[in-house]
Amino acid sequence: AMDGASPPTSPTGLSACVAVSQLLGLTLLATTGAWLGRYRGGVAWHSPLQFNAHPLCMVLGMVFLQGDALLVYRVFRHEAKRSTKALHALLHGLALLIALVGIIAVFESHRTKGIPDMYSLHSWCGMATFVLYLLQWFLGCGFFLFPSASFSLRGWYKPQHIFFGITLFILSIACCLLGITEMLLFKISDSYSHFVPEGILANTLGVLLVAFGLVVGYVLTREEWKRPPLAEELALSMDFKTLTEGESPGG
Amino acid sequence: AMDGASPPTSPTGLSACVAVSQLLGLTLLATTGAWLGRYRGGVAWHSPLQFNAHPLCMVLGMVFLQGDALLVYRVFRHEAKRSTKALHALLHGLALLIALVGIIAVFESHRTKGIPDMYSLHSWCGMATFVLYLLQWFLGCGFFLFPSASFSLRGWYKPQHIFFGITLFILSIACCLLGITEMLLFKISDSYSHFVPEGILANTLGVLLVAFGLVVGYVLTREEWKRPPLAEELALSMDFKTLTEGESPGG
Repeated sequence: AMDGASPPTSPTGLSACVAVSQLLGLTLLATTGAWLGRYRGGVAWHSPLQFNAHPLCMVLGMVFLQGDALLVYRVFRHEAKRSTKALHALLHGLALLIALVGIIAVFESHRTKGIPDMYSLHSWCGMATFVLYLLQWFLGCGFFLFPSASFSLRGWYKPQHIFFGITLFILSIACCLLGITEMLLFKISDSYSHFVPEGILANTLGVLLVAFGLVVGYVLTREEWKRPPLAEELALSMDFKTLTEGESPGG
Repeated sequence: AMDGASPPTSPTGLSACVAVSQLLGLTLLATTGAWLGRYRGGVAWHSPLQFNAHPLCMVLGMVFLQGDALLVYRVFRHEAKRSTKALHALLHGLALLIALVGIIAVFESHRTKGIPDMYSLHSWCGMATFVLYLLQWFLGCGFFLFPSASFSLRGWYKPQHIFFGITLFILSIACCLLGITEMLLFKISDSYSHFVPEGILANTLGVLLVAFGLVVGYVLTREEWKRPPLAEELALSMDFKTLTEGESPGG
C-alpha cells in the first residue's frame, strides 16, 4: 500500500507474507514432529503410539493444508480461475482425508485404552469443525466446481463460503490449541508448571499455530491482494452484475 | 442482500444478527455466573474464591465488551462519527480495565496458593493478547481519537487497526476456551470423562463463546452492512482519496 503503483505481477508484500506463511507452516510440522518424536515416543499405527497420529494429522491437514488451500487464489493470481479452483478443492479434499485418518487414530486409541470419547470441549469443537468443514467442501464443489448452481445463487453463496471458510480455519487452529493443552495436562500435569522443556516446546507450537493463522488471515483479508479478474472473467462478471444487482442509490 | 433495495435505516439482517449477538452475550455471562456460582462456590475478592473473579472478568471484558465495542459502527450507523468513535474507545477502555482486574485476580490467587505463574499455553496466549490489546487501544486513540496523525497515515493504519482488532477479539475467545479446558482438567479431571453436569455446562459455555464470536465476526465482515459515510464525511473522504491515491489503472 505504501510502495506506490503495484506491478502487474505479484505485489512484493504479498510474496513476502506468503513466504513467511510457508516457513511458519513447515516449522509447525517440524515442531509437532519434534514434540511427538522426542517426548512422546514417536508415531505408529497398530501400537500404543497410535494416539500420536492424531496431533500430527490434524496439524498437517486441518492447519497447514487447509491454510494453503485458502491461499491459492492469492498465489496463483494469473492462472485460469478453473485450474486454481480445482487446486483449491483438491487441497481441501486432501486436508479432509488426512484429518479423517487423524480422527480414526484417536477413536481407535481410545477404544484400545478404554478411554471415553467426545466428552471434552476439544472433542466437541473439533468434531463440529471437521463435520462443518466436510459440509463446506461439498457445498463448495456443488456451487462452484460443477456448474449446477445458477449465477445469482453462486453470487449470493460466495461471500458466505469465504466467511465460513476463514471461520473454519480459525476454529481448526483453536481446536489444536485446546488439544495441546489437554495433552500437556494429561501427560505432564505435575511437571508442566516447572517450565520443563516439553511444556515450553508444546507452548511454542501453540504460538506458532497462532502466528500461521495470523499471517494467512492477513494475506486473505488485504483488499489490494485479491486475485485480479482476467479480461474474459471481467466481461462475464459485468454481465452478471447487470443481471443480479439493482444498484441502490449510494449515500 | 436478497431482500432488494435496503431502506436508509438499519438493514433487517443486521438488526437481527445484532439482536442474536446480544442475546448470546448475555447468555455467556449468565452461563459463566452459573458455572462459578453453582459448581465453584461463587466469586469473592479477599478469599480462596478470588480465582473465580478471573474467568468472570475475562468473559465480561475481553469477550462481551470487546465484541460490543467492535459492533458500535454497525449499530450506530447514522450518528456523528466522532460520538461513535468515542463510544468505541470507551467500551474498549472499560473492557481493558475489567480484564486488568481479572488478571490481578489470578496472579494474587496464585501467590496465595503458591502456584507458579505464566507456564501454560493459556497464560502465554492470554498475556500476549492483553498486552497487544492495550497497545492497540493506545495506537487507536493516538491515530483516530486525538488528531495527531496525518490523513495519509490514518488511511494507511485504518485497515491494520481493523485486522488486528478482529484478530485480538478472536484470540480473546480462543484464550477463554483454553482457560475453560485448563480449569476443567485441574478441578474435575476424574469426573470430566463421565459427562458430569459441570463438564457439560462448561463445554456449553465454550460453544456459546464460539457462537458469539461467529455472529460478531459475520456482522463485521458483511460489506453491505458497513457504516455508510454521512454527507459531510463523504466530501472529506473524496478530498482524501485524491490526495493519497494514485488510482492504478484497473484490470
